[in-house]
Amino acid sequence: MSDVSRLDAQMAFLTEACRLKSVIRANTLCDGSRYENSAEHSWHLALYALILGEHAPDGVDPARVIRMLILHDLVEIDAGDTPIYAQADRAAVAAAEQAAADRIFGLLPADQAADLRALWDEFETAQSPDARFAKALDRFQPPNQNLASDGISWRDHNATLDKVETRVGTPITRGAPALWDWIAPKIRDWFARNG
Amino acid sequence: MSDVSRLDAQMAFLTEACRLKSVIRANTLCDGSRYENSAEHSWHLALYALILGEHAPDGVDPARVIRMLILHDLVEIDAGDTPIYAQADRAAVAAAEQAAADRIFGLLPADQAADLRALWDEFETAQSPDARFAKALDRFQPPNQNLASDGISWRDHNATLDKVETRVGTPITRGAPALWDWIAPKIRDWFARNG
Repeated sequence: MSDVSRLDAQMAFLTEACRLKSVIRANTLCDGSRYENSAEHSWHLALYALILGEHAPDGVDPARVIRMLILHDLVEIDAGDTPIYAQADRAAVAAAEQAAADRIFGLLPADQAADLRALWDEFETAQSPDARFAKALDRFQPPNQNLASDGISWRDHNATLDKVETRVGTPITRGAPALWDWIAPKIRDWFARNG
Repeated sequence: MSDVSRLDAQMAFLTEACRLKSVIRANTLCDGSRYENSAEHSWHLALYALILGEHAPDGVDPARVIRMLILHDLVEIDAGDTPIYAQADRAAVAAAEQAAADRIFGLLPADQAADLRALWDEFETAQSPDARFAKALDRFQPPNQNLASDGISWRDHNATLDKVETRVGTPITRGAPALWDWIAPKIRDWFARNG
């Protein structure tokens, strides 16, 4: 593949990626002014990784985690965002995301498609320290925005402390225990006042 | 500084950073549906760097460029976005951005504030190969979105081919000549049809 046709393929992918800015998530911005989209969420998570890398367990490579987080939600262009407190057919969501990954990464030159698809698969399966840290950050950012906005998304979804501990606390503890230790008392305090 | 007070400072910075999602830029999304904000723009640029690193001149470190691009617009939280085709007092903008950098990076623990401020200063002065490549991507993304949306932001600002060649072509050629070679014929064709 010539340099020009590689660039044609890469630019088709980058223009398609623009659509992630129109995928709306269940949580709001910190000031509660509107719901967040998945592109700005992905930027915020990359910044979380850049700032909080020192709190990752040994063996985590922050630069790889940043690459993972930049890519992690691209499949939502086709599959949409599935809120963690919503009732959902998780197997159907996973199948839709796999098909989306085939199509979207498939826009890239084959070597690059294979590399980035492997990085996304690693994120999804959450078995490596890098992927577990990336998943922990993906779960850690929304409750911070919920605390800042006085719980808009928790109220929207009738979230309970028990659900937050299970769906958010468990993956954060698995990938970044120091971050759960920091936020858990704040979440418990919010639910004690509002539960 | 204890781990907990480092985290307090880092989380204050990350919550403040959320405001970048409310800074509106002069160009629209690719589909023209609305104007882009600086947070989703920063995400898209980080993705550009991840995908297009192979077209960078020798000596460029894509991982450093990605970190630079994640940070590059944070000063706009205080200083706002200055469209490249607008009339503006560039010295006043630069002073406002320096004051913003003092305040915003100053929220972080001192060692981290110094490291990230140095990375942002390097981006701003655009003297290193990494910074020149990062600046080139920052100029390369908007014309791609303009071409996709049939020139909304060019029409808004009465841009001319001459202005685009000067304000966009020059920094792209300086930091990523292969990307200017790729897009220049497309831009010239658009202005030939619409100029």
